[in-house]
Amino acid sequence: VSQEDGLPQRVGIVGAGLIGASVGIALSGAGVEVLLRDTDDEQVRLACALGAGRPWPVGETVDHAVLAVPPHAVAAVLLDLQKSGLAATSSDVASVKVTPVAEAEALGCDLTAFCPAHPVAGRERGGAASARGDLFRDRTWVLCPTPDTSPDAAGAAEFVARTCGAVPVLAPPEQHDAAMALLSHVPQVASSLLAGLSSPLADDDFQLAGQGFRDTTRLAESDPALWASILEGNRRPVADGLDRLAIALSALASVLRDGSPEAIGIAVRDSFAVGGSARRRLPTKVGQVTPDWTWVGVVISDEPGQLAKLFAAVGDWGVNIEDMRVEHNRDAPRGVLELAVAGGDAPILLGQLGAGGWTAYRRD
Amino acid sequence: VSQEDGLPQRVGIVGAGLIGASVGIALSGAGVEVLLRDTDDEQVRLACALGAGRPWPVGETVDHAVLAVPPHAVAAVLLDLQKSGLAATSSDVASVKVTPVAEAEALGCDLTAFCPAHPVAGRERGGAASARGDLFRDRTWVLCPTPDTSPDAAGAAEFVARTCGAVPVLAPPEQHDAAMALLSHVPQVASSLLAGLSSPLADDDFQLAGQGFRDTTRLAESDPALWASILEGNRRPVADGLDRLAIALSALASVLRDGSPEAIGIAVRDSFAVGGSARRRLPTKVGQVTPDWTWVGVVISDEPGQLAKLFAAVGDWGVNIEDMRVEHNRDAPRGVLELAVAGGDAPILLGQLGAGGWTAYRRD
Repeated sequence: VSQEDGLPQRVGIVGAGLIGASVGIALSGAGVEVLLRDTDDEQVRLACALGAGRPWPVGETVDHAVLAVPPHAVAAVLLDLQKSGLAATSSDVASVKVTPVAEAEALGCDLTAFCPAHPVAGRERGGAASARGDLFRDRTWVLCPTPDTSPDAAGAAEFVARTCGAVPVLAPPEQHDAAMALLSHVPQVASSLLAGLSSPLADDDFQLAGQGFRDTTRLAESDPALWASILEGNRRPVADGLDRLAIALSALASVLRDGSPEAIGIAVRDSFAVGGSARRRLPTKVGQVTPDWTWVGVVISDEPGQLAKLFAAVGDWGVNIEDMRVEHNRDAPRGVLELAVAGGDAPILLGQLGAGGWTAYRRD
Repeated sequence: VSQEDGLPQRVGIVGAGLIGASVGIALSGAGVEVLLRDTDDEQVRLACALGAGRPWPVGETVDHAVLAVPPHAVAAVLLDLQKSGLAATSSDVASVKVTPVAEAEALGCDLTAFCPAHPVAGRERGGAASARGDLFRDRTWVLCPTPDTSPDAAGAAEFVARTCGAVPVLAPPEQHDAAMALLSHVPQVASSLLAGLSSPLADDDFQLAGQGFRDTTRLAESDPALWASILEGNRRPVADGLDRLAIALSALASVLRDGSPEAIGIAVRDSFAVGGSARRRLPTKVGQVTPDWTWVGVVISDEPGQLAKLFAAVGDWGVNIEDMRVEHNRDAPRGVLELAVAGGDAPILLGQLGAGGWTAYRRD
């Protein structure tokens, strides 16, 4: 195994779930050789089919290992890798940092060869099947070197972050965990419990839900087992945050129950002002680059074979479909399929669809 | 002023903020004559410039008035309009229903000529400047007629909702307020207080915030004065919900502080499971019950003709595609196409795909 400029040329990934497979796709896309392993062979098979790399055979060494496993598993996997001598340096992706580092130290791991790290990106849907090579693009990737972490380990972790398109940000493990408790872990718990409050409602009542409910409870579909591991790994800071939130909620409930309209007005305006100012301190969104695609809608009837006919025709016209989505329309015998194409292809697609008898339109 | 088929041809809007101006733009676009008034002339000027209608001169009558004012102002504005005889019927847009109706009754309003209503749509940014004609398209517009509401008043409110492109949903005022407490009012408070928790963090810490924080706290930028009015108008149901949420948060905090890892795992998994199931009861779209489909993922390479080949094969197997979506994967040479099929078709589809050499899997 060779390294030019000390940067890893071959990276091993332990854990072929959403994060591990996404790292694999991003690194492979950038020309890095990627090897994957997982206790679940099916995840490795799927990740490799998606272009995340190739299975990691027993005994093959790598320059750097990315431990894409839940927080509670980091220390044991690190020890195992270091004992086998398979990876020169390692980093992890766990959402908590203090506990895994303490556990690694207690197990006798070599902390010089380990750079704790945390890409701040994810989806509610886990597993290799949900992996995306652009998952980390323009997202924060927190590097949390300990006083023991060697420059080689930190450099390799930073290389992985940058190659995935992320923005590396330095923070000591303690600061990371305190901030993530309030910015991620408590919001996750609040989202899940908030969604749970609506359990007693009738199915029809859910028709009254607007975008606010959808957004505030989006995280409620996250993986409970993964979150049990994260919350257990950051228990005190999260418990403190949950208690503070509970106290604030109870205080407002009390004013709503017994306060005058004036007292309610003051309590709501004051607490909302604090929340509003805090949120406005978020850096300007560095979200994904909006792709320069044009969306074209096509009306699809319910007759069999319509989709096959459409896609065969689109292929004949030499138009490449970048993305697609379905506009649901339950009450109608027809639906709309929306196709994203490169801007220059839109007039061709629209013209051909029109000539072919399809009802199509440009979607603004 | 004439009415054909009892439907309003001229609609007056009181309150030219986000909701009022958006209703005006939508109705004007559909050919309805719209008149607007507001205590703030600037909002009326702006709304009219955006195509929401024309200023409502003193003394001019309308077929139906839409009271787009905060909840606490509904009863007084309704009384004023009814005394002046300017509107045959009225509806409102307030996010609470029981209190304004009780206040209108106490003031001696004619409740036969009033249909309480609530379009479930909004933006964090208020004012006529944020108005959009498509704000209500495909959104729920709850109609909450009381036992007193006349068919004319209810019909006019439904006409406004449908003309704005919304989906009318019927719910008595009490049911509306109980559901909205859990689906909108408590989420709003939780979002604001959650954002406020992060106040003590340093500016640099906010770089660590991910999409989860942005989504769960998006509502924290909502208008505090409007929300004081909404929460005051639904105080008991909201207080009950806030208390339930506080209790659930404290209980989880307590387990995190003192529980064993096993106890934490159980508590997290149980509470997250409740939240996840509740959220999955949200309709995909208004008026649509969550369909009982099974999703099957298929890995699609970037070679031309793959989609045509796939859909032709699926058609040959006699499997009906109910819905589909793309797991877009910008940096990979392959993507995943997910197909929704009736549960019984999933094994057939998976078997045929596997036999045909496709990498496919069942999506849980």
